[in-house]
Amino acid sequence: MIKTENYLQKIGNDLWFTEVDRNNLKIDYRIKEVVHSETSPFQQVMILDSYDFGRMLVLDDAIQTTALDGYIYNEMISHIPLNVHPNPKNVLIIGGGDCGAAREAAKYPDIDKIDMVEIDETVVKACKQHLQEVSGNLSDPRVNFIFEDGTAFVKEKRDYLYDVIIVDSSDPVGPAVKLFELEFYRDLYNNLHEDGLMVCQSESPIFYSEMMINIYRRLNKLFPVVRVYMATVPTYPGGFWTFTMGSKKYWRPNPDKFDKDTLYINKDIIKSCFAIPEFMKELLDMD
Amino acid sequence: MIKTENYLQKIGNDLWFTEVDRNNLKIDYRIKEVVHSETSPFQQVMILDSYDFGRMLVLDDAIQTTALDGYIYNEMISHIPLNVHPNPKNVLIIGGGDCGAAREAAKYPDIDKIDMVEIDETVVKACKQHLQEVSGNLSDPRVNFIFEDGTAFVKEKRDYLYDVIIVDSSDPVGPAVKLFELEFYRDLYNNLHEDGLMVCQSESPIFYSEMMINIYRRLNKLFPVVRVYMATVPTYPGGFWTFTMGSKKYWRPNPDKFDKDTLYINKDIIKSCFAIPEFMKELLDMD
Repeated sequence: MIKTENYLQKIGNDLWFTEVDRNNLKIDYRIKEVVHSETSPFQQVMILDSYDFGRMLVLDDAIQTTALDGYIYNEMISHIPLNVHPNPKNVLIIGGGDCGAAREAAKYPDIDKIDMVEIDETVVKACKQHLQEVSGNLSDPRVNFIFEDGTAFVKEKRDYLYDVIIVDSSDPVGPAVKLFELEFYRDLYNNLHEDGLMVCQSESPIFYSEMMINIYRRLNKLFPVVRVYMATVPTYPGGFWTFTMGSKKYWRPNPDKFDKDTLYINKDIIKSCFAIPEFMKELLDMD
Repeated sequence: MIKTENYLQKIGNDLWFTEVDRNNLKIDYRIKEVVHSETSPFQQVMILDSYDFGRMLVLDDAIQTTALDGYIYNEMISHIPLNVHPNPKNVLIIGGGDCGAAREAAKYPDIDKIDMVEIDETVVKACKQHLQEVSGNLSDPRVNFIFEDGTAFVKEKRDYLYDVIIVDSSDPVGPAVKLFELEFYRDLYNNLHEDGLMVCQSESPIFYSEMMINIYRRLNKLFPVVRVYMATVPTYPGGFWTFTMGSKKYWRPNPDKFDKDTLYINKDIIKSCFAIPEFMKELLDMD
């Protein structure tokens, strides 16, 4: 076994990328090719072509999204809030450097503006060029790329508010930790119209249940309505993933309204994704 | 790295069990202890105590169930058919050596008899003794253990029929291949009352979609109603798992009737688990 830089190792003739989850679980992906590798001011950015998942975006040692299943996560984090809000015009995406969430939001002709605040321009460039299965070669004039720290952006005073804010963050380690704190959620609240809503990915209910519980409790301190929904994302350890929505007013999905061209989400999924297993209800102290 | 027998390897001071999925994906579990290891006439049977998933049943090189999430699979494969059938009295379980499905079925006081046909007695003994998180130390007089090949069992002539048959098989490799064939499904059909139904685990829609499609098509040749439902099972690669139900009559779940003490399933899950993502509808050629 030859350990190389870039979290890759060569075993025999094969190249493997290993993702380590809490030192007790390792997932090894056989790799065809390193398509792109670049060190940005924030992290190492790689596009790897894998045998099982196709092309993958890897930031430092963690897989972020893959050609195989990126659509599941991106459709679920975008269409659910955009379906619950009856008439979203101004949308803010924080993170989401793979451009997948912006691509889904751009499917709504009634949306006027999609501000996408991503700290690392390198990620956006790499995904637009080398991961078009996810980014979809996004070029919609309504999407404004703002390469800035999301927590700083939502602290600025602006003369407009948002209808929907989507927080498409990586896991709460390193710089992303701030995207899971009460102060940040309060800034999101202040950037929303009086009937606005926000959504964030809220980790695995099995492996990171404490983080899911914290997010739920923090949002409950601010928003009158907080709801959790689920999807299965094969790329993430355990596959079991949650999203948490904090809303000032709306909470009911409108499945019959949904008419977008998608691979995962449809009316049935919109209707059913808020069904929460019994152990999660207990963790979240729901009735 | 010292490769030992039993698919385990020692790296430094740590013991790891590695599951290899189609040569392109390897999942390594850090192990505290080999609790039990025995070679039966059919396979190597191990109970391993892992850091992340607790105790696990391993047959040859494949993890079958774990203390962490075994309840998800076992609750979904049992309670859904037992909820769809309005009045199950005679239940047959084929496979299910971890005893989890039988344990769930035993929660229904109106069931008279649960025949459990498992080819390998060693698995049942190991799970009853060492994996009680899953087997629940099952000792219900209605459960009849029959240690026999399931395909042979359903070919025998008997003077009674079943209301519900649960096929809790391992993956379609080796001896389990026969449990995925049309001939076996026809024998199941013949063992069911005129309003009976059966369910089987039908693999991952992402990694084994061809198998899922085959099961769906084969059951459609026999049963007037075939329905697919889903759950997220973290232990299985990708987490995304399907179950397929073939029924002679009933197909509607009765969520309001559900009153069992469970960890995953509840009324909401029963209502929502038949919601199928768009790509699966396309794979299965559903409207």
